[in-house]
Amino acid sequence: MASHSSTLFSSSPTFAPFSSHRLHHSPNLSTVRFSRPLRSKPNFTLRCSVSIEKEVPETERPFTFLRESDDATQSSSTSSVRARFETMIRAAQDSVCEAIEAVEGGPKFKEDVWSRPGGGGGISRVLQDGNVFEKAGVNVSVVYGVMPPEAYRAAKGSASDQKPGPVPFFAAGVSSVLHPKNPFAPTLHFNYRYFETDAPKDVPGAPRQWWFGGGTDFTPAYIFEEDVKHFHSIQKQACDKFDPSFYPRFKKWCDDYFYIKHRDERRGLGGIFFDDLNDYDQEMLLSFSTECANSVVPAYIPIVEKRKDMEFTEQHKAWQQLRRGRYVEFNLVYDRGTTFGLKTGGRIESILVSLPLSARWEYDHKPEEGTEEWKLLDACINPKEWI
Amino acid sequence: MASHSSTLFSSSPTFAPFSSHRLHHSPNLSTVRFSRPLRSKPNFTLRCSVSIEKEVPETERPFTFLRESDDATQSSSTSSVRARFETMIRAAQDSVCEAIEAVEGGPKFKEDVWSRPGGGGGISRVLQDGNVFEKAGVNVSVVYGVMPPEAYRAAKGSASDQKPGPVPFFAAGVSSVLHPKNPFAPTLHFNYRYFETDAPKDVPGAPRQWWFGGGTDFTPAYIFEEDVKHFHSIQKQACDKFDPSFYPRFKKWCDDYFYIKHRDERRGLGGIFFDDLNDYDQEMLLSFSTECANSVVPAYIPIVEKRKDMEFTEQHKAWQQLRRGRYVEFNLVYDRGTTFGLKTGGRIESILVSLPLSARWEYDHKPEEGTEEWKLLDACINPKEWI
Repeated sequence: MASHSSTLFSSSPTFAPFSSHRLHHSPNLSTVRFSRPLRSKPNFTLRCSVSIEKEVPETERPFTFLRESDDATQSSSTSSVRARFETMIRAAQDSVCEAIEAVEGGPKFKEDVWSRPGGGGGISRVLQDGNVFEKAGVNVSVVYGVMPPEAYRAAKGSASDQKPGPVPFFAAGVSSVLHPKNPFAPTLHFNYRYFETDAPKDVPGAPRQWWFGGGTDFTPAYIFEEDVKHFHSIQKQACDKFDPSFYPRFKKWCDDYFYIKHRDERRGLGGIFFDDLNDYDQEMLLSFSTECANSVVPAYIPIVEKRKDMEFTEQHKAWQQLRRGRYVEFNLVYDRGTTFGLKTGGRIESILVSLPLSARWEYDHKPEEGTEEWKLLDACINPKEWI
Repeated sequence: MASHSSTLFSSSPTFAPFSSHRLHHSPNLSTVRFSRPLRSKPNFTLRCSVSIEKEVPETERPFTFLRESDDATQSSSTSSVRARFETMIRAAQDSVCEAIEAVEGGPKFKEDVWSRPGGGGGISRVLQDGNVFEKAGVNVSVVYGVMPPEAYRAAKGSASDQKPGPVPFFAAGVSSVLHPKNPFAPTLHFNYRYFETDAPKDVPGAPRQWWFGGGTDFTPAYIFEEDVKHFHSIQKQACDKFDPSFYPRFKKWCDDYFYIKHRDERRGLGGIFFDDLNDYDQEMLLSFSTECANSVVPAYIPIVEKRKDMEFTEQHKAWQQLRRGRYVEFNLVYDRGTTFGLKTGGRIESILVSLPLSARWEYDHKPEEGTEEWKLLDACINPKEWI
């Protein structure tokens, strides 16, 4: 079995454990080195922005990827969020993979399990060239790492000459990209993640930090308005259970995030996206993330079922392939998780499982106004309110 | 006809007019704004690292893209290098396109011409889905722009509180990527460029700067040793006419530049690459660039002629497509010209004409040891001396 690195930084358009305004990426990010196990050598020289141990393959899925000190038997409410988030994302991985295999009617996911000596690990599942899906990847990972002190914004008590040390962090997430074969069936991406820092030991009073991030978005090559409405309605329902401001805010955030700047168009027709969310009750946000993850199957699978056997022409397929090219452009050029993963030496196959099996670039291709292809492009350029 | 931006920053793995150690790219490079025409409003606020006017389409190829003050009738030897370099790259574009059309036997290049009001412009030629070539792009461009003073390294006379102004620059180049259909025929890339700054007016004694850059490299999906030897021999012959140190030095530079760091492999089997070359006689380097550009046809066309009609299987094609995926990864993630062009708002279709018509990503694909696919991969991981 091949060795693995974090899928937290991978397989996903949004899977960096922290956003760029927290982690002030320096140009030398590309020289990141992997640290030795944190517990055995806590005082290693930090030559990098973020350091994570190299992973090792496992033959079986462990009960938990948490360190012993974090596991669910602890009474601390914080470690309990870590444990419950891991349980949630693993359940989400199972239910999505089950639903995909049910649609496939035969082909099964290939699974790779890996861990890190200092704690953490992950499960990568990929189903390639199935009956319905060209490529489907569903990954979970748990990461213990160390972030540079600049990234820990709360440490305001420290004067600039105090040189606070690196801050240990915990991150866990589920991440998935599903590319169907039929050009009328949309691509789906979702990712839900939870992040925590330890309280910095050398800055008295500086607190432990936590936040949630994630989203579910979809990328059709052709618009079926009933599908788009269905998809967005399920996202809105999940949001509305928690806060009426969530859906409009996270829908716009999604349109803004999946923006291919050099094309002035979005990757697809959006959904919801949020990051750095910590200004609500922690339990509420855990429930919200769980609700969102649980909404993936009802939001997506009925659409795939409806579209997977539709007849299509070579022209439909070529247009899907062109839109897949845009997917590649977004992921390789802009996506925070992918670019971060490539630079920090993550496991490439896990990071790039988000890319489609095939993609296409035609010189100066412009769909004729009024065509179905043009309508899709127009909706990517001018995001619409679907419900 | 569509509007165009510079192909100097485009269509090419190596087409930024200056390398990153000259232009200390700041994170706000992505907020580059286009300036108004330089001559009509020279004192605009420089909010960006590099500023270039927006281009306008032309219906005919002009005799020259140079500003009047730079044209060939001037006696100044410097403007003469500008003029002779433009003549050279336009001749190279013509001869390569002629040779490609001769191989195609029917299909012709589509041409787009564009200019900028303040001087400069370019000619883009693309032949797509021909008999032999999947996509062939050959572009020339001439750019007048303004670079930030930090990028002008020679201005050492100025104290840091002197705030020297932005430095006007001139850049011209030819850039090409040729992707054949047959998986046994290699992809070719070449690019030759010349760069000049004006002498900064506010820093007395600081000189005008100039340098040459470029290279020719090829990317087969399968190794035919006679082809690789032929290709590299022609590069060596061109180099040896000028300096015996050139081929070994530029061959290594090429292997180092076209490196896909996250894969730990090169994009292809190399060739020659050089940048920032100004420590030789200027006339000699102009002749050397000309020799290299003239070597493209004899280095490449005989290989395409030999391989274009070879029979191949679906498996051969799939492997070519996987290697095309690597080409996309290199160009979108690492290539200085492409990434610079995308960030500065260059004409996207010109920049991304370097991408193949189609590409493929399979999860965790590993060629079996000893196969032809494995041999290619091995040569990309461990660059060889071919002659």
